[in-house]
Amino acid sequence: MTSTELSREAIGGFVEALRAQSRFYHDQHPFHLRMNDGRLSRRQIQGWAANRFYYQVNIPRKDAAILANCPDIDVRRRWIRRIVDHDGSKSGEGGIEAWLRLGEAVGLSRDELRDERHVTPGVRSAVDDYVSFARTRPWVEAVASSLTELFAPDLMAERLAAFERFYPWIERDGLAYFRARLDQAPRDAEHALEVVTTHCRSAAEQQRAVAALTFKCDVLWRMLNAIDQAYPD
Amino acid sequence: MTSTELSREAIGGFVEALRAQSRFYHDQHPFHLRMNDGRLSRRQIQGWAANRFYYQVNIPRKDAAILANCPDIDVRRRWIRRIVDHDGSKSGEGGIEAWLRLGEAVGLSRDELRDERHVTPGVRSAVDDYVSFARTRPWVEAVASSLTELFAPDLMAERLAAFERFYPWIERDGLAYFRARLDQAPRDAEHALEVVTTHCRSAAEQQRAVAALTFKCDVLWRMLNAIDQAYPD
Repeated sequence: MTSTELSREAIGGFVEALRAQSRFYHDQHPFHLRMNDGRLSRRQIQGWAANRFYYQVNIPRKDAAILANCPDIDVRRRWIRRIVDHDGSKSGEGGIEAWLRLGEAVGLSRDELRDERHVTPGVRSAVDDYVSFARTRPWVEAVASSLTELFAPDLMAERLAAFERFYPWIERDGLAYFRARLDQAPRDAEHALEVVTTHCRSAAEQQRAVAALTFKCDVLWRMLNAIDQAYPD
Repeated sequence: MTSTELSREAIGGFVEALRAQSRFYHDQHPFHLRMNDGRLSRRQIQGWAANRFYYQVNIPRKDAAILANCPDIDVRRRWIRRIVDHDGSKSGEGGIEAWLRLGEAVGLSRDELRDERHVTPGVRSAVDDYVSFARTRPWVEAVASSLTELFAPDLMAERLAAFERFYPWIERDGLAYFRARLDQAPRDAEHALEVVTTHCRSAAEQQRAVAALTFKCDVLWRMLNAIDQAYPD
């Protein structure tokens, strides 16, 4: 066996270990299962949308923190696209705007989302921990933490189907954010996977990358815990 | 006098105080005066270009740190342009690439610039302090620190004239970075000035903005001190 084969095998095992973190992904959270079964009330959907907005507005700042810590110009040139996707280039564009429209579609005003009146402490601390992780940890670990995007497309596809089926009171135009992520998430995940498999070669580096992804899964899980508690059945 | 007039007057005084920091700008540094008088040797020009490159490669990371700290999506949408200007969108584009070409025009290889072999401790600490300022201080102060761009176009115009007149051995194509900054710096300075005059309303806030600009002038001055010492006549 050549060293190239060995290395390819090692990378294969590493990618497998990353993908295996899907067992901690929030698609299996009780609140999420109830959402996709059509069992959430309008108020619960609203609470989820308003709290999740706090995550959305912080994503570009998380990605800018990664950019600030990254010395590789080629990685920066591709990573910056994420910020543009979320912020948009001008008023009325981007993922944050799309989430504001989702908020309107579920019956929340833009002000209600922007002033964070519905955001629970558990959601705030989970999101703040995520941004702080990107700011303070080595940039490759922060990139690894973004790899929940490996699991996102399936969740988005299921959510779109569930929303259209069980929550017909939500205007379909309000779901544009999820549709956009069906394309963006796989592209972003592919880049992030390329970065971590290039930069994490030792067992210790690979373990830290897997731990970063576990941490991110926990962030998303903690958010649903907090939302579930604040908006009980 | 109406409160609007008072406020306009107060802003006028603030802008004047910012502009007055030009007295600390590095265009008056002895090394810079000798550069524009055509009195630098090839080795001194090379030393300056190689050390200044360390500043250039850190600028996008400084701007990304400001982006990461900035909660205002409209500011972020404009600020991100600076990162694209410096990094470029693909290989062969952007301000860092233009500086690498300047390096080649003065007789330095790309590797020589990239591996930082010529960078002096004084330059490294000055630049690192600047990036650290952007990372750790309130984002409006970091924006204020960028306002040396108010003074840059004059310096760039003089430098271009001096280089063409006194250093004809430097290929003219190598000066593209300075030409690009003639347009970029005023646009960037205008935006930064808009941000600080909007956000710094109290005397204390305005003083901190002026202090941030003094700090940045000192960063540039310290760089020339270090270069001057490393490359004496």
